Amino acid sequence: MLTFVGLGLYDAGDISVKGLEAVRASDAVFLEYYTSRLMGTTIEDLVRAYGKEVIVLARADVEQHPEPILDAAAAGDVVVLTGGDPMVSTTHMDLRLRAAARGIPTGIIHGASIQTAVCGLTGLQNYRFGKSCSVPFPQKNWFPLTPYEVVRQNLAADLHTLVYLDIQQDRYMRVGEAIDLLEEMAVRVGGSITTYIGVARAGSVSPVVRAGTADHLRGIDFGGPLHVLIVPATLHPVEQEYLEVFAGLSV
Amino acid sequence: MLTFVGLGLYDAGDISVKGLEAVRASDAVFLEYYTSRLMGTTIEDLVRAYGKEVIVLARADVEQHPEPILDAAAAGDVVVLTGGDPMVSTTHMDLRLRAAARGIPTGIIHGASIQTAVCGLTGLQNYRFGKSCSVPFPQKNWFPLTPYEVVRQNLAADLHTLVYLDIQQDRYMRVGEAIDLLEEMAVRVGGSITTYIGVARAGSVSPVVRAGTADHLRGIDFGGPLHVLIVPATLHPVEQEYLEVFAGLSV
Repeated sequence: MLTFVGLGLYDAGDISVKGLEAVRASDAVFLEYYTSRLMGTTIEDLVRAYGKEVIVLARADVEQHPEPILDAAAAGDVVVLTGGDPMVSTTHMDLRLRAAARGIPTGIIHGASIQTAVCGLTGLQNYRFGKSCSVPFPQKNWFPLTPYEVVRQNLAADLHTLVYLDIQQDRYMRVGEAIDLLEEMAVRVGGSITTYIGVARAGSVSPVVRAGTADHLRGIDFGGPLHVLIVPATLHPVEQEYLEVFAGLSV
Repeated sequence: MLTFVGLGLYDAGDISVKGLEAVRASDAVFLEYYTSRLMGTTIEDLVRAYGKEVIVLARADVEQHPEPILDAAAAGDVVVLTGGDPMVSTTHMDLRLRAAARGIPTGIIHGASIQTAVCGLTGLQNYRFGKSCSVPFPQKNWFPLTPYEVVRQNLAADLHTLVYLDIQQDRYMRVGEAIDLLEEMAVRVGGSITTYIGVARAGSVSPVVRAGTADHLRGIDFGGPLHVLIVPATLHPVEQEYLEVFAGLSV
């Protein structure tokens, strides 16, 4: 059997009790660590905390040569660990499809995800979020305006936008960088964003959550990664109060 | 300190390791069980599994007379357990605000949520979801069309819609009932929905996930609660394949 287990948000303790039991009962544990990472732990810590050897997968191990994973899952109980809640990435979906094609039973043990964690951290109500978007690091001759277009469409429908920030190798986009990019996109398109909410290290004991104008947030040290950004629509009274109390939003 | 801990989706094993540690280290544990429930366990099971007495909260205990919770949190370490990921409900936000007003430190330990679990179970990509909606049990002279309007707006923008189904006391809306209601709304508004995806018991070892037309899904026994429904937009190739393999979508 092939079981995908979500590691949750930040460190070795964010896996569910059920997920940890599956890890401990398994014959082999693989770790998919290239589409997302836990910033509050190391692979060595995970191995120690879970009491199991962990085989770290490179992208090619999953996308081009998944046979060793599938062979192990055909012969015994295999767990594939992923950050957050599993299967969000196409690469996991593909692996599950390949397992099914070989007649290997599959299952999912869910984990906490940044997508809902931001609701608790910011007080923004989950049913008021529209489509999410991602801000990539710009490259030479490539500066997509799509992220701002998504924000603008959501704002027009009075919906909040969760903005994922790019991760490349060991480079993690910061709140300030993302704001600079969105502000530049807004200028090019001819729009503007009045309020941002930055969230750093969701799932840790010391997340930083701050709300305000672009200039206000640029002056705040959010600390280490991962960061995400939210562009809120008009705020309901309880959302407003929550952000004033827990994210320093100016009245 | 007042710590909100998410119980995750289905049973006592869906809490995170970190959450369970917080429960065990706490001086008092409260359980908010009126906005959501875990269908795969009982309060007695939770008490046994966590090794702690649990004080079950009624709505009035949180919304009108939260002083005992706050007094305990001012004097020691208090955990408030909630289904899914905490703070999604306004009632939790209000409790955290009251704690802050009394100078009581607060924190959140996240849990898995149906909002992202449906992505793994259905293969629908998380960034392609628009605003979510809820279908309530109709009442005399009250048959809101809003849920269908949300679906229609999302479909127009080629976005999937997660549809939450009503819970009232011990009455849990089923996939078939929700489809009947949405079909009736569509008739009244003059639209139609071609494909539905029903999901039952997310987070359990035997979730049921089925995709197809209204008539097809009406003939399927989804088993016990909780159920949710998704109305998908046009399907990307990998979404289509995933639903064919894991949800019986007809080619």
